[in-house]
Amino acid sequence: MSGAPTASERIADHVVSVDPAAAGEETVHAVARAFLDTFAVAVAATGDAVDVALTGYVAGSTGPASLWAGAGSASPEHAALVNGAVGHVLDYDDVTSPLRGHPSIALLPALVAAAEATGADGRRLSAAYAVGFEVMCKLAKACALDHYARGWHSTTTIGLLGATAAVGHLTGLGRDAVRDALGLAVAQAAGTRQNFGTMAKSFQAGACGAAALRSVALAAAGMTAAPEALDGGTGGFLRLYSTPEAAAALDAELATLGQSPGELVTSGIDVKKYPLCYATHRTIDLLLDLRAEHGLTLADVERVEMRANRGGLAPLLHDRPSTGLEAKFSMQFAVAAALLDGEVKLRSFDDEQVRRPEIQRFLPQVTATEDDGPPFPRWAEVTLHLADGSTLHRRTTVLRGSADTPLSDDELLEKVADCFGRGGLGEHTSTFADAVFGWADQPVRSVLARRLP
Amino acid sequence: MSGAPTASERIADHVVSVDPAAAGEETVHAVARAFLDTFAVAVAATGDAVDVALTGYVAGSTGPASLWAGAGSASPEHAALVNGAVGHVLDYDDVTSPLRGHPSIALLPALVAAAEATGADGRRLSAAYAVGFEVMCKLAKACALDHYARGWHSTTTIGLLGATAAVGHLTGLGRDAVRDALGLAVAQAAGTRQNFGTMAKSFQAGACGAAALRSVALAAAGMTAAPEALDGGTGGFLRLYSTPEAAAALDAELATLGQSPGELVTSGIDVKKYPLCYATHRTIDLLLDLRAEHGLTLADVERVEMRANRGGLAPLLHDRPSTGLEAKFSMQFAVAAALLDGEVKLRSFDDEQVRRPEIQRFLPQVTATEDDGPPFPRWAEVTLHLADGSTLHRRTTVLRGSADTPLSDDELLEKVADCFGRGGLGEHTSTFADAVFGWADQPVRSVLARRLP
Repeated sequence: MSGAPTASERIADHVVSVDPAAAGEETVHAVARAFLDTFAVAVAATGDAVDVALTGYVAGSTGPASLWAGAGSASPEHAALVNGAVGHVLDYDDVTSPLRGHPSIALLPALVAAAEATGADGRRLSAAYAVGFEVMCKLAKACALDHYARGWHSTTTIGLLGATAAVGHLTGLGRDAVRDALGLAVAQAAGTRQNFGTMAKSFQAGACGAAALRSVALAAAGMTAAPEALDGGTGGFLRLYSTPEAAAALDAELATLGQSPGELVTSGIDVKKYPLCYATHRTIDLLLDLRAEHGLTLADVERVEMRANRGGLAPLLHDRPSTGLEAKFSMQFAVAAALLDGEVKLRSFDDEQVRRPEIQRFLPQVTATEDDGPPFPRWAEVTLHLADGSTLHRRTTVLRGSADTPLSDDELLEKVADCFGRGGLGEHTSTFADAVFGWADQPVRSVLARRLP
Repeated sequence: MSGAPTASERIADHVVSVDPAAAGEETVHAVARAFLDTFAVAVAATGDAVDVALTGYVAGSTGPASLWAGAGSASPEHAALVNGAVGHVLDYDDVTSPLRGHPSIALLPALVAAAEATGADGRRLSAAYAVGFEVMCKLAKACALDHYARGWHSTTTIGLLGATAAVGHLTGLGRDAVRDALGLAVAQAAGTRQNFGTMAKSFQAGACGAAALRSVALAAAGMTAAPEALDGGTGGFLRLYSTPEAAAALDAELATLGQSPGELVTSGIDVKKYPLCYATHRTIDLLLDLRAEHGLTLADVERVEMRANRGGLAPLLHDRPSTGLEAKFSMQFAVAAALLDGEVKLRSFDDEQVRRPEIQRFLPQVTATEDDGPPFPRWAEVTLHLADGSTLHRRTTVLRGSADTPLSDDELLEKVADCFGRGGLGEHTSTFADAVFGWADQPVRSVLARRLP
């Protein structure tokens, strides 16, 4: 091959240029937080139908890689498949804005399985996570907007390319093999938004991690692929999965690969603080604040008017939810539960919690409307009409838990404890969290062993 | 779900409506021929770099499914991955016109592995093959032309959907599970023409069979997917992988599902008679006939003028090939080898055979030009200028080996023997062929055991 390097080659050059031992404390801590969050939401899904189906499917598989929900292990590919699906089924795992999707569920099931198989420590895993996140965000900035709008599940398509770069880095793949692994990943890039709302959505996330491991293992074994698999004109990723314009955009993005600070700082990770649709989160923040400040409960409130920026309510399909799954997409439920319980946690979405009479009675008292102004910056405001005739009003643009306004470690641990409790591991939260926060020089496999001390 | 059935549901209705025990002798024989051909071209690739890499990758996998090149076995998914890749790497496996691709390499690695795992006999496998072929051709007729032109590897995208239907039929999946399996297949549909010319092309074929088995196994375990995975507007297969017009076309095609005679008869299977680009095959037929009829050899010929319909030479990039891989895409080599050797077989493409002085000297004596008339029907004509000053001229539209002009069983067995010889199994050809032709009431696993009697 002569001429200018292809996109795959430029990414491969970046992947092999990053010193795996040089991840700073900030990176190690950020990835520890991401792992703790992702692992915990998988634990919370223990016993879910997706967990049951996939754990059964890999029964008989043996290997060094942990199944996160439960205590088994399997081959790295099988573990990545199960953990990726189980960690995504509650839709409670982290997000990053450029991807229009979930970075850690694309990266960590594959990376952790590879780290367990190779004996890598947390620092090395963190460096590889940062590489994968960097690659994923550059690709996403070039093409995710159109790609997602057309119906692709960007977490599992663009995410697969990032995960392949990450696993390639972790396993010390050479430059040409990273290039080939990216081509083998393009050979497997799939996942559609049509499957959202079914178990296939979380399967797609699991299949992404398994495909990343497969791509790297086969490239290491000498399988070749097209150097032009990303940017070529006979079926390159950009041509098939995006628009012709994306090629120029990618060219510009790749020029910024590895600039300091990296995407892990500039785009960052948004942690979901509440286990339901992101479009309700600002409102829940406002209501919990007002409730605490004014000593309110639901009985003190006659009705609530909620407003959001244009487009801010689009995913919220259910005004009168009667199941937990419907309630995950209901502003009315979010308002009622926040005011009644002073919290919105996993248990809030048990069907019987949703069906409580005091909740159901209040649903018609909540109006939610969109403003007709500009869609950005996003905002939410609430007006509470109280039983004593007074009103309370508040507005915010802030989204707590997002990269701009991160949760503190303690707030994150509250979420982890809730998830661990749901999965039957409640008493192990702090021991496990300590192990993860201290993983810099510990083999990832010994950290995983601490989940059940 | 209410309303009109989705495309997945219509296909599922067809899959469960076909009686697995009712495959007639014609179907059983046609599928036996397809299996013999596909198996043989895999055997011919024994020891190829793709075989070495993938066999190493599945080392340690245990299970009931045979690896065709070599004598090992593995899990059904692993066997389908290896057999699909190894059976496609020589590009000598069968073709069907509507798919713009290779039906048996999409169907048989998965089907045979499933049959070995379940104890199914050849009749049952044949019924399932016919179901998968039917589904694949209907989908292909609706969208393959545009799909392939854009750069998709239709063998592994549309082929995956056919293979999933086929395996679903073989394993007796219920109607809703077939529908879900198709959605899980869409979740994994990938493969790009950009990877043609690299080992990733054959990997894509192997990954297709593995994904079909995974889709069916997970649907059987209760994993759900979108009923609209094929024809939905939020990322259905037609939307992501084709054009909006394809939806109407598919609607019409699905109305013909299961009509008699089925696609296995009407579209049929084209067997490759020579192990090189299809665009040379008519010419080789003409030359071998003239050579035999006139007792010619290369020394009797001064030069050859070859002409073809417009577009008929497009893939033939190499006028002066010096390696076997280049020779696979050279009309000059095809002409020289046919006249010198009186055959064009696998051994013709050993590098040293291509580099023989008498071949290399003759390459400039062959001119190949396209006519500027209509591209269809396709034709080829040759004019031989002989050393004695006379000329011989012949023209044909026939493509021997295609569904219209099939090879006799004996001609097919000649190919099989050549492939088996290449793979070191030459002396076993007739024993194995007898077992396959008699497979109607034999477990497929005992037929496979006969490859090394």
